[in-house]
Amino acid sequence: MKLFGSPLSPFVRKVRAAIHEMGLDSRIAFTAVTMTPVAPDAVLNRANPLGKIPALELDDGSSLYDSPVICEYLDGVHDRPRLLPPAGPARWQALRRQALADGIMDAGVLVRYEIAVRPEALRWDDWIAAQKGKIARALDSLEAEAGALGGGFDIGRIAIACALGYLDFRFAADRWRDRRPALAAWFETAAKRPSISSTAPELAAT
Amino acid sequence: MKLFGSPLSPFVRKVRAAIHEMGLDSRIAFTAVTMTPVAPDAVLNRANPLGKIPALELDDGSSLYDSPVICEYLDGVHDRPRLLPPAGPARWQALRRQALADGIMDAGVLVRYEIAVRPEALRWDDWIAAQKGKIARALDSLEAEAGALGGGFDIGRIAIACALGYLDFRFAADRWRDRRPALAAWFETAAKRPSISSTAPELAAT
Repeated sequence: MKLFGSPLSPFVRKVRAAIHEMGLDSRIAFTAVTMTPVAPDAVLNRANPLGKIPALELDDGSSLYDSPVICEYLDGVHDRPRLLPPAGPARWQALRRQALADGIMDAGVLVRYEIAVRPEALRWDDWIAAQKGKIARALDSLEAEAGALGGGFDIGRIAIACALGYLDFRFAADRWRDRRPALAAWFETAAKRPSISSTAPELAAT
Repeated sequence: MKLFGSPLSPFVRKVRAAIHEMGLDSRIAFTAVTMTPVAPDAVLNRANPLGKIPALELDDGSSLYDSPVICEYLDGVHDRPRLLPPAGPARWQALRRQALADGIMDAGVLVRYEIAVRPEALRWDDWIAAQKGKIARALDSLEAEAGALGGGFDIGRIAIACALGYLDFRFAADRWRDRRPALAAWFETAAKRPSISSTAPELAAT
């Protein structure tokens, strides 16, 4: 299988961390793609018409996207403990947390497009503030449930760790740890897991 | 249960169409929310810290999001044929199609924010063109697989129908049917299903 992505994308990091947890590294080739919405990549577009990363090309030539679909697919092809609980409250909890963390990533990426891709004269401060407001509320919500995060490592926790790592990478000046000590303490431990530490965007950016 | 949403949102329409197909209408109260990223709604934010619709409040007071998670959750609480195939190629096909259709919706909503929410002086034509490019490529991809859409109705087909309906509602001038006759023919039939026809945004907008 072939994974299209950038090591700087938090969504790609989530999939790569999941692959590491699943022990599937040797079965999936990473294909680096550099693109933005306004500078698409033709090869990626053949794997995912939306031009988004990650996209997973299967051995039969077909492709899967987006990142939650890729993670669920891969979770069915390894023999370690499942990262997506099969059913019941644990599954909805994990999928809701993944959606919350993905929402932090989405908002963060939109801010990046606004401040690093869009021409300076066309930037809108209210948009940036609104997206950062989404991130702040999501972080407050995670702080409130941080005490429940200490158990096993599943797709929800992986997504949260990758979202927090993205904030450290792109928005360190916003100091998300301030007033969120429980979440910060959880992340300090989670960031040391090999699946998380080995996929840090800082490793690729330096 | 309580579903937060706007009848104009294609993601909300997807969930409402799924609820109709599942026969769950009587168990879920619809709570209308009007918001944009820069004009959030405090009640919605309590159900979903990201401030996005749809959000589903369960009977125990907890909430689920985003729309794929809500659809999968609800698919486990009814006794009609499943909208998400349980496993295997049919499941990945349905989830990939849902992601493709959701990507059309995402791009369309971003264009709407650009042309209807952002101050006129700050609009960026390249951004609009890029998002419309994503939509066009996704539509071309759906045209190529339209011959395979004729079978049953699942979450992938529901999502595609809602994405196409959103294009008709917001971007009729772009004439997506031109050069996509197979997809147009499929949609002409799909749009007549009660779950799709009864949730059309035009019904709420007039």
